[in-house]
Amino acid sequence: MRVVVPFDPTEPNTRLSSVLSPDERREFADAMLDDVLDAVRAAGGSPEVLASAPVDADAPVTVDARPLSAAVNDALAEVPVSDTSKGSSDERSESDGGLPAAVVMADLALATPDALTRLFDAAGDVVVAPGRGGGTNALVVRDPAFRVDYHGVSYRDHVAAAEAVEASVGTVDSFRLAVDVDERADLVDVLVHGDGAAAAWLRDAGFRVAVQGGRPVAVREPND
Amino acid sequence: MRVVVPFDPTEPNTRLSSVLSPDERREFADAMLDDVLDAVRAAGGSPEVLASAPVDADAPVTVDARPLSAAVNDALAEVPVSDTSKGSSDERSESDGGLPAAVVMADLALATPDALTRLFDAAGDVVVAPGRGGGTNALVVRDPAFRVDYHGVSYRDHVAAAEAVEASVGTVDSFRLAVDVDERADLVDVLVHGDGAAAAWLRDAGFRVAVQGGRPVAVREPND
Repeated sequence: MRVVVPFDPTEPNTRLSSVLSPDERREFADAMLDDVLDAVRAAGGSPEVLASAPVDADAPVTVDARPLSAAVNDALAEVPVSDTSKGSSDERSESDGGLPAAVVMADLALATPDALTRLFDAAGDVVVAPGRGGGTNALVVRDPAFRVDYHGVSYRDHVAAAEAVEASVGTVDSFRLAVDVDERADLVDVLVHGDGAAAAWLRDAGFRVAVQGGRPVAVREPND
Repeated sequence: MRVVVPFDPTEPNTRLSSVLSPDERREFADAMLDDVLDAVRAAGGSPEVLASAPVDADAPVTVDARPLSAAVNDALAEVPVSDTSKGSSDERSESDGGLPAAVVMADLALATPDALTRLFDAAGDVVVAPGRGGGTNALVVRDPAFRVDYHGVSYRDHVAAAEAVEASVGTVDSFRLAVDVDERADLVDVLVHGDGAAAAWLRDAGFRVAVQGGRPVAVREPND
């Protein structure tokens, strides 16, 4: 499965500004991206980073500074560079495209190969893995008429967009794909459930889980 | 599968106080409980409500006013009332108990029969469905030596407690079991993904999903 991984290296994780400096937010975002790329490969996927600015990554990178939805829709329609040697015509129709393909967000620090395998294997012309708060954290697209739109209540919108082009819709019920890490509260989930570069980065930075008022919270202690 | 559903009718959903009156919070909690009981039965489970105070519910109710963990541990050790006619001895050992049994929280308003079936069918002497923020939203217990402890980082603690008694541990990766509804932000998930009594109650109360600053939020509009 071809897997597009959108990544914004310019100002990542702004809502973590209260606990991480700009440089740290960038490092943490890089660590989460590494974890996602590793999990995608372990699930048999071929990741491609779709970045909003030039970035070093352990996968092929396409830079597209346009808004997320436009960049992703064009990426899904493109024949991947690695496939052009396989005899694709220069005059391919739009429906050739690079499908099937998945779109997996770069801040899914809890994504596991098992969870991604369930995503890739799920039946449906369009498969949606919901994120918390009405979002879409991962998709599989098999119908070239489908277009993504990440603005707003994107889970609901993606289901409606699929139905509008008469594409069948599947869903994947996964906690690990539902957690996109962009708030301080999410760091607890990374520290408790993560076992990759992002969790290691947080621990190295002095984060640990403490219980305050009976509830787990992520706290930061000075490193020596 | 015997399924214990802990429920606190005395002061439910206090963190929804900014948007719901005390009476409304109680009504909403009742609606979520109804949804959970329905989903448990549709998954083949036999629900029993473990309430901290007397309550009407569409299932057998045991009242136990002690803290949650103590009440659940005693409930798991008990032979359910419905089984006493099957010849259980009054002098049964602790290891007889009512196991296997599941513990499913009453505020899992997104729980579906499919998600609960995955829970009930998962392999392991102890099976844990993580909640967000380090919690445990649902459990299956097949080992009588295991004790629950919901205080603190209960996911981590339950895994450690199982390992301490040499019980094998399974996990269930489910968004629908990971969302316990106790904050305003969670109402978006109920409105987007719920199709039961809790979602209907919210809609009747005037709640809908609006997009503010590009993000979905639950807003309340006056009813006529």
